[in-house]
Amino acid sequence: MNKGKLFVVSAPSGCGKGTILLEVLNNNKNLFYSVSATTRTPREGEIDGVNYYFLSKDEFKREIDNGGMLEYAQYCDNFYGTPKKKVFEKLEQGIDVILEIETKGAMQVKGVMPEAVLIFILPPSVLELRRRLNKRGTEEESVIEKRVKEAEDEIRRAFNYDYIIMNDELDKAIEDFEAVLKASKLTKENNKNMIEEVLKNA
Amino acid sequence: MNKGKLFVVSAPSGCGKGTILLEVLNNNKNLFYSVSATTRTPREGEIDGVNYYFLSKDEFKREIDNGGMLEYAQYCDNFYGTPKKKVFEKLEQGIDVILEIETKGAMQVKGVMPEAVLIFILPPSVLELRRRLNKRGTEEESVIEKRVKEAEDEIRRAFNYDYIIMNDELDKAIEDFEAVLKASKLTKENNKNMIEEVLKNA
Repeated sequence: MNKGKLFVVSAPSGCGKGTILLEVLNNNKNLFYSVSATTRTPREGEIDGVNYYFLSKDEFKREIDNGGMLEYAQYCDNFYGTPKKKVFEKLEQGIDVILEIETKGAMQVKGVMPEAVLIFILPPSVLELRRRLNKRGTEEESVIEKRVKEAEDEIRRAFNYDYIIMNDELDKAIEDFEAVLKASKLTKENNKNMIEEVLKNA
Repeated sequence: MNKGKLFVVSAPSGCGKGTILLEVLNNNKNLFYSVSATTRTPREGEIDGVNYYFLSKDEFKREIDNGGMLEYAQYCDNFYGTPKKKVFEKLEQGIDVILEIETKGAMQVKGVMPEAVLIFILPPSVLELRRRLNKRGTEEESVIEKRVKEAEDEIRRAFNYDYIIMNDELDKAIEDFEAVLKASKLTKENNKNMIEEVLKNA
């Protein structure tokens, strides 16, 4: 049996990544979505093990020291990361795993698992992204500027990804995403056993 | 504008490659199917420029000498090859091109155009392939044995392809094929311009 494939998805906030992933996971029940760990306080309605694994700083640091984190980063005094155990278990069982993480974490994953498939979701333009963030109306101008600046930094790292999906039309973006998932399973590297099997029954 | 992508498809005879390609070309009107050239005599009903470009041996050799063939090979005293001109014209126009050629030719193409995407269509087993060839009932036993032997040689070269599609179920094979076409257009290499464009409108 083949091992599962690891997919890493990143996008600046406001790109519709959440909507795309929800639809893709709904259409592909065999995909395992990896829940991240964090040391930040749960927000109202967030459930441990669903939105995040909520760990104390001590617990998180112990995981790092034990090599239990596939990638991690610190933001605003809090840690965020991907616990290794479940991801590896699923891959060993032949189940494909999806990580939804930011670009620095994605680079860490590619460093230790070069066979991971990195997918970046692009907004039509940074201007459009700014418009979407403004439309939400929940953020102050200075916060929006900071977000736009962060988005630009993330988009620059898209050059290090394997696939680029433009979300200018939701249905097309979902179709593109699913084509990447499917094609990634059809690579020669993934199917050497199959070729040998076909030759065996001659 | 991005250049078109070159797809190369191979399969042993009896794999259903023709049926898959017909359906894929029907669903993707923007794909250009490259017609091969040959020096063999046209069979009844074959049309010059549709089934093949029928050339004399002198014409074919002149094309080779002028560097006009992207790949070529000699079988049973006849030449078969891919005229370069139209393929390159279409690629320059941003149109994707499909070559349906055998494995040795595919290796030649990969050698000169490493960005070409090579797709190999596998039968469920060599045993099944033998059954399909027998079923046709048009060939003698010795001819079938020769075909099976050739098929095995071709399948061994599948290890040099980018994507492997198993045709054990026609609809699935067509879906897989189309996913490879779509995903190949979404690679980072293909979309650097797009990333730069998004960053420009900040």
